[in-house]
Parts: sequence; structure tokens; C-alpha cells
Amino acid sequence: MSTDRPSARLPSGFADARADDVLARQAMVERIVAVYRLYGFEALETPALEYLDALGKHLPDQDAPDEGVFALRDDDDQWIALRYDLTAPLARFVAQAGQHLVRPFRRYQVGPVWRREKPGPGRFRQFTQCDFDTVGSASVGVDAEVCAVLAASLEAIGIDRGDYVVRVNDRRILTGILHRAGIDDARAQLTVLRAVDKLDRLGVDAVGELLGEGRTDASGDRTEGAGLAPAQVDAVLAFVRSGGGTRTEVLDRLADLVGDEPTGKAGLDELATMAGLLDAMGLGGDQVVFDPTVVRGLAYYTGPVFEAELTFETLDEKGRPRAFGSVAGGGRYDDLVQRFTGEQVPACGASLGVDRLLAALRARAGEAAAPRGPVVVTIMDGERLADYQAMVTELRDAGIPAELYPDQRSFKAQLKYADRRRSAAAVIAGSREFDAGEVVVKDLALGEELAKGIADRDEWRSGQPAQRSVPRADLVATVAEIVGRGTAPGGEG
Amino acid sequence: MSTDRPSARLPSGFADARADDVLARQAMVERIVAVYRLYGFEALETPALEYLDALGKHLPDQDAPDEGVFALRDDDDQWIALRYDLTAPLARFVAQAGQHLVRPFRRYQVGPVWRREKPGPGRFRQFTQCDFDTVGSASVGVDAEVCAVLAASLEAIGIDRGDYVVRVNDRRILTGILHRAGIDDARAQLTVLRAVDKLDRLGVDAVGELLGEGRTDASGDRTEGAGLAPAQVDAVLAFVRSGGGTRTEVLDRLADLVGDEPTGKAGLDELATMAGLLDAMGLGGDQVVFDPTVVRGLAYYTGPVFEAELTFETLDEKGRPRAFGSVAGGGRYDDLVQRFTGEQVPACGASLGVDRLLAALRARAGEAAAPRGPVVVTIMDGERLADYQAMVTELRDAGIPAELYPDQRSFKAQLKYADRRRSAAAVIAGSREFDAGEVVVKDLALGEELAKGIADRDEWRSGQPAQRSVPRADLVATVAEIVGRGTAPGGEG
Repeated sequence: MSTDRPSARLPSGFADARADDVLARQAMVERIVAVYRLYGFEALETPALEYLDALGKHLPDQDAPDEGVFALRDDDDQWIALRYDLTAPLARFVAQAGQHLVRPFRRYQVGPVWRREKPGPGRFRQFTQCDFDTVGSASVGVDAEVCAVLAASLEAIGIDRGDYVVRVNDRRILTGILHRAGIDDARAQLTVLRAVDKLDRLGVDAVGELLGEGRTDASGDRTEGAGLAPAQVDAVLAFVRSGGGTRTEVLDRLADLVGDEPTGKAGLDELATMAGLLDAMGLGGDQVVFDPTVVRGLAYYTGPVFEAELTFETLDEKGRPRAFGSVAGGGRYDDLVQRFTGEQVPACGASLGVDRLLAALRARAGEAAAPRGPVVVTIMDGERLADYQAMVTELRDAGIPAELYPDQRSFKAQLKYADRRRSAAAVIAGSREFDAGEVVVKDLALGEELAKGIADRDEWRSGQPAQRSVPRADLVATVAEIVGRGTAPGGEG
Repeated sequence: MSTDRPSARLPSGFADARADDVLARQAMVERIVAVYRLYGFEALETPALEYLDALGKHLPDQDAPDEGVFALRDDDDQWIALRYDLTAPLARFVAQAGQHLVRPFRRYQVGPVWRREKPGPGRFRQFTQCDFDTVGSASVGVDAEVCAVLAASLEAIGIDRGDYVVRVNDRRILTGILHRAGIDDARAQLTVLRAVDKLDRLGVDAVGELLGEGRTDASGDRTEGAGLAPAQVDAVLAFVRSGGGTRTEVLDRLADLVGDEPTGKAGLDELATMAGLLDAMGLGGDQVVFDPTVVRGLAYYTGPVFEAELTFETLDEKGRPRAFGSVAGGGRYDDLVQRFTGEQVPACGASLGVDRLLAALRARAGEAAAPRGPVVVTIMDGERLADYQAMVTELRDAGIPAELYPDQRSFKAQLKYADRRRSAAAVIAGSREFDAGEVVVKDLALGEELAKGIADRDEWRSGQPAQRSVPRADLVATVAEIVGRGTAPGGEG
């Protein structure tokens, strides 16, 4: 055995999740998945590792597509890697299944993804995604349902109508407007997308400068402009300003900008049909808006794009109030499967960021009281282990989570343990109780409340209103009453 | 873009799980976790990747401990790897948390683990484990509870009493017997363990040969023996034969073999105390047995070891009946945390193999009928998309999983889709129905049953007893009746 010991630590960007977080995330995922299933999506689980070439180089937000994944060579010398999202494995699955798969194929998948990126505060290299996609249909009905699923999922986890908005845009509209304005070069189009993406942060004027001659910021730093002509800049800015108001109002403004341009008109027609379907589904203008400023992922998706945003304010890490922002994104991507088979398979879906949603709910709700831990049966007499064990078994048989304090340490240490576990109750029995055929049950939650309300702790201690002796036969009923306090009627024991 | 396309395939030893498998596994894990929580264990989730040195070289069943993991160098050039079990991350977590962690710490964890091993039929390189461990107590009560949790978990997922057995052994008993017989060399002890491990396959006589002079098998292959003296061989074989009967009977036989040897006596005393606790928990001799032949992992664990085995017969891959075998294992390991901190922290727990359990339940139950898929609303008139969408929305609002067939393809294609989805019902509305304010609901399950029972399919088709026209306003009630057939009373519509 070597004497130098490894250090107990995690690689940066990875974290453990304790019980509260695990259970909160599980409860959230269950509610989201129930919505997915209600909308006809079925479960799929793909493995964590895939061939690197099958995952492809499709990291949507990344300029250097070779990087960003945890990869290694398998025993056959081929590169395999941890999946960086749940879409690439879906494409591989659909291509592999071929004609055996019933189409349209609606699947959901929940699971961790891994990104080899520089970690930062709140930025992890493993996080959970919760995706749903429909593969094999180009119907606008599928697109409209993505909005409905996003809205229903957010409401299912307790984000009320009015506290979120699903933003919709269509890539083809901007493409059409750019074409109409004579901006046809692919690189110039990408520069425009990047400039528009900075709208939130910089405002319309600065975006105008970035589209034209370039911009010098407050610190004197100079950013080169896209060099568009003034009329072209105006066309893009008119597009950027076309949002706001009802879905119909946005459609009217965009119709003026698109004119007869066929690509733009195709996108606009789809949005118009979608508007009718959203109405049919009862989705109001406060739930789903058409927003031309949503460009995130426009370079990646081939039709409509979706972004779900939480609109209530939370405090950022510096204590400043700000809107929580994006928690889900998606869109139509019609060529992912084609990469494998040559067959173009239309697909559309979205991904919810579970960890960000959980952070959002927590930020709004504040710190909730930790749930109560299992009932602790303490050990006063090491010779009576089997008797204590029988008590624990009775409690569990009644469906009450319970545990035996395993070691005969000081009474104080055992009660401190029960406190730190946030147990609802502790069970105590020494030789006096065994002789009398009794058991002492201590209501730890009531004890805490009394301790908070009474200034003179010594006075309270002498009274011990939070604990009582009951016949051994009444153990389960007494504990059940304490654990269920507030819901169960007292005094059955 | 390159024109050579990647192949859509998975690395060997990895597999996708379709909806039936995902849901069956989830349901099973939920029941197991409910038991863990009832026994006071709390959730923990550690990340998939850890520092390789923190995971250690503790693969229990492996002679070449450097191999077996998927590892790569992180950006800081340190080796990181996918966890190969859930115990090593627990040790790292406990060592890292130090004094902040409330002890005893009872945690459960469910999740995938990865092993870089040669895959084979039914042998995967990613599989799910479901662990529970108590860290920070050396109490025999903790050991006894491992048996109780294993038994309760198996019964919770539908494996009846009598169809499983939890086998218990204690490493110290064999150590004591070996010491008493003068077999003190560590290498000789390991050889004995290996020989005893082959008992199931080879039988007592062959194990005796392996312990002594060596053995020549039927094919003429020669295996060197451990070279023990005849009296030493007899001592080991007497130990091997000491199982069978009640827990008390086994304890009596082992007491004779151990005599006064202190290490063996310590192990035996612990088993005797455990027997009393098992009785107190109401665990019968058919549920938990003391079995000296359980040596799997004896080299890894430091005290008692546990193995849960399913005893009912299934057919193996060649159609031969055989007992299903081991589905869970565990034991006491008191030095895993010590590796990091030098502090000896007692720990004990076990791991259930979820995938093997699922296979076992399936093998016994046979192929169950696939669950019904969502209700499919078909599209007869592409101009009426919003009307169809409204039908789907009404069904979902009533809690009935439903989906819109997204494209206006042939009626036959749409119904075939609903059949392949195993939908309970299809909803049909063409211009005739819209004009009449009606909708047609087709009971697909009933249709299947009728089709099976009626020889003359044409006759049945003309009758169409499985579909009916109802007023549009009765859509939801009619579908609800069909979906809930057998539970819901009919005719509310």
C-alpha cells in the first residue's frame, strides 16, 4: 500500500447533489414528464457514451466545434464521447432504427449531458436536460404543439401564467428580409445574426452601429461593423423593432417587411397558421408571443425557433433584481438525420434546462423548510438491541420512515443526531420504561417551536411538554399522530 | 461539408432503452427507493466523472485494477474517469465532507455506472445500480438492516417470499478457521477463497483437489493446487459444508470449527447477535440464511458479506431451466474512507443490480402486453387543423394522453399509425361529421379483440361495432369511457 493519499475532491464544474436537491429535481421532472406523456411523447433512453462521429459537430452555440466534449479512444481505437445534448443521440437512434421505427416518432428523454467547457459560477460541466421531439413530420401542428408543451410544462411545475413567456420566431422570415435587402452572403448573414443577438445587452442603436460602420464602446474598445449600407441596416432594424403586441399585430408588421419574398413568406405563412392553432389550443397572447428578436440558434435550426423565458424578477449573484431569463429552447431542425442516411427527416422539439428551472423556483420561493427526516429510535441499553429493532420494524411496517440509532452513545449525542436529521420524533426507552411496559416519544418539531416561543429555556425544559410516556403498545399510533400532526386527529393512542 | 457520412451505430456494450423498458425500470426503482427511504436512507447524487485517483483501484472482482474504467485527461492534465460503481464516489463524498456530515450517514444512490470490460450477451458496459450504505457506524444492527432492506426491496418489486434468499457470511470466520489450520500466508488465503468460489460450478471434491495437490479436468487441463496439507484441506471443506438448515444450526456448526480462535470468534459473535436482530425484525429462515459458501467479495469486504439470490427457475439463453441467481451484493467495508484521510470510518451497505432484476421479473412473467399508447386524432381535412387541434386539447385537459396525427396522409396510413402506437382509440372527423356536429370514435382495443374472435373479417368490417358516431360535445366522455373501459361506467355521454 502506498502512503500518499489521494485528495477527496471533484473535478471543477462537477457537484454532488444532496437529498433536498435530488428530491426537488425528481419531483419537477416527474411533473414535466407527465405533461410530455399527456401530449403523446414516449420515453427513450440512450447511453451516455456514443461514437464521436455519430454525435457530430453540432454544438449549437460553439464556434470551435471540435472542442467541448469529453472524448477518449475505445478499445477498438475509435473515438467515443459523452453526449453533449440529447438531440444528437436522437438523430443517431432514428437513423439506426430506419424503417422499423413508427413515424412520426414522438419521444422524450431526461438525463445528464456533459460539456467540456470552462466552468464558472453556476456553470457546470454536467447538467440535466429534459427534451421532447417529434421526428418525421414537417407539420406546423407539431411546431405549435412545442409551444403548448413548453407552456404546460412550466405551469405544471408551479410557474404561473404571467410569470413566463414562450417566444417564437422563424428563421425564414429574417432570411427573406435579408435577401430582399440584398444581404445574401452567408458570412454577412451570420454577422447580422450575431449583432441582433446582442440587442438585449446593447440596445437598438448599438446594434445599428454594429450592422453598419462599427462601434466604439464606453471603454474605447472598437468593434468592426458588418459594413451594411444604410438602407440594409434600416431593413434589419425594422425587423428587430417589429415585435410587441398581439400575435396578429406582429404578423401584420412582418408582412410589410417581407413583401413577396418567397422564403420569408413561407416562414410568415407558417407563423400565421401557427397563430390559428395556438388560439385553438387556448394559448393566450401572454403565454406565447411572436418575437423577431429571438435569434439564438437561428443558425442551427431550419424553421421556427422557440425560447421559454421566466419573466419574474429574482436577485442576481450581486443582489440586483433582474428577470430570470431563458429556461428552455428549441426549434425545427430538418437535416440532423440526413447527416447519417442522406434521407431528409423533418424534426422539431425543445429542451428544458432542469437545473436552471430548479434554481428559478428556489430563487422565487426563497429557502423552504427542509423536509423532516426519519423517526430515530435511540438506544439507552445496548443489551436491548433486539427490542429497539422491533420498535423500528413496527414503525416501518406502518409506513413511517424510521431508523435505529446504531450505536450506544450518550443520550445527548443521539438526540443531537435526531435534531440534525430534522427527525419529526425520537423514541426513547431505558430500563425504567421497559420495566413499566412504556416508551417515551419526543415530538422534536413541537419542541423546536416551543423553544422558539419561550424566552426562558430552563423553564421550558423542566416542563417537557413536547415529550410523553405512552404504553409500549401505543408506540406506532403515538408516532403516527406526531408525524401526521395537522392532518391526523390526535388522541387515538 | 464532407460527403462521407458517419454510420448510425452504438459502441459495443451499449444499448438504447425504449419506452416499455424505461417505464418498467422507473417503476421498479421507485419501489426500491421507497423501501430505502422507509429505512431512513436519504438521496445523494454524485457526478458521473471523478478524478481517477479518487475512484481508486478498488474494482472488487478484478485482478488488473488499472484497467476497467473509461478514463481521459482533463484540461488540467489530471486523469478523470467515469465511475465504475457508486461506493467509491460515496467514500470520496464522505471524506470530502469531513466533520460537516452528520454521522451515521445513511444514503442511497441510483444511477448508471460504466465498466470498460469486454461486452458479451447480456453483459453491458453501462448499467444501473441502486445502492444503500450506512457510513459511520460499526454496529451489527446496521449489518442486520442490510438484510432487511434487501428482503423488503425484493418483495416490494413483486418477488415473493420463497422466491429469493439473502445469504450472509462473515469474512472473519473463514479467516479464523484458516488461522487455526495454520494457513496464514495472504497468497495462500486468496487461493483458498478462489477455490471456494468455484464450489457452485465444480462441487466439493474438485474444490478439495484445488486446495491440495491440484486438479486435472475432463478435457485434460491441469490446474495447480494450493498445496495445503490434508488436515488443512479438511478444515476448509468442513467450513464449506457447514451451511444448511436454520441460522442457529449453522452457528452451532461454525462454533465447533472456530473454537477459541479470536478473529473467527469475533465474526461468529457478530453473526449470533445478527440472528437475534433478524428474529426481532421478523425475518424468517427462508428469507435470510447464514451461508459459509458466500465468498464473493470476501477479499474486498472487512466483515459480513451479503448476497441476494433469486431462487425461482427461468430458462437460460439455451432454453435450459436454471435458478436466476445473484441480483444484489454487499458487505461491510471499514477502510474505504481511510484511503483519503487516514481516519478509519466503518461502513456497510449493498447494491442492487436494477437491469438484472428487471430481466428476472420479465423472465418469470413472460412478455406482458404492451401498454396502450395515446389517443390519436386523425386528420381528414387539412383546412380543419385548428378544429382537430381543439379536440386534442380537450382530451388532454381531461387528463387523457392524446396526439394529433400531424400530416394529412391517407386514412389507412393514419389508422395504421394508431395501431402501431397501440392507441386505445382513434378520433375521426370528415366534412360529413363536421356538418352534422358529430365525431367518430374508434375503439381500437375492442376492434382488435373482435378481429381475433371473428373468422370472417369482411363480415366484421361491415358491422363496425368498434366505432360509433357521437355528438361533438360528447367526444371527451366517449373517449374517457373507452380508455377507462372496465373501470369507468359507460354511457355518461
